[in-house]
Amino acid sequence: MFLINIDHVGIAVRDLDAAIGEYRRQYQVEPSRREVVESQGVEEAMIPIGGSHVQLLTPLFEDSPVGKFLATRGEGMHHLAYAVLDIDAALIHLRAEGVRRGSYRLRPSEVTWRHAH
Amino acid sequence: MFLINIDHVGIAVRDLDAAIGEYRRQYQVEPSRREVVESQGVEEAMIPIGGSHVQLLTPLFEDSPVGKFLATRGEGMHHLAYAVLDIDAALIHLRAEGVRRGSYRLRPSEVTWRHAH
Repeated sequence: MFLINIDHVGIAVRDLDAAIGEYRRQYQVEPSRREVVESQGVEEAMIPIGGSHVQLLTPLFEDSPVGKFLATRGEGMHHLAYAVLDIDAALIHLRAEGVRRGSYRLRPSEVTWRHAH
Repeated sequence: MFLINIDHVGIAVRDLDAAIGEYRRQYQVEPSRREVVESQGVEEAMIPIGGSHVQLLTPLFEDSPVGKFLATRGEGMHHLAYAVLDIDAALIHLRAEGVRRGSYRLRPSEVTWRHAH
């Protein structure tokens, strides 16, 4: 298994527009894209920072995974996503190591899972 | 203010040796350095991943910031550190924006502060 990079750090926020404004003012950065991902119950904004991203996440409804995270832990870092060279090899390796996979997305060369909190 | 990269993601763990072993098995990565930072009450291991790092942190004593974090929130992501082009300009900008700076280290071109949780 080869980790290429930290693809993104997912950060749960209550108000996506407010958070984007805060990152704009504080760090002078802008999202490169913003999208609603119905299947995960989130709206997200990806902010490129060097070779990685900060991904701001806000829940579409309270009973979603990010909604529950906000209710119990408040705003803050939610997951860490590594870009890998070979997603199939990575999943086989992680399964063999007994890692519970929170979720993953079918983007080429990227596996996302929730970090143990 | 210019963010060069995500320098590291700090992750609080209870047992540094166990965590290093877990990262070795699960992600096949190794720390490039490990050190005790008495002034911050931590022992830390830096694991290079692409242009960034995962920094595993364990408290030297319970009453340290990381010790208190573990007691209240458990193991997990503790802070996000950006590498910046000009640390003095970054600090002036952040102060002007009213950002409370949790901490920073006197490494060239790096500013570290605790992310809002």
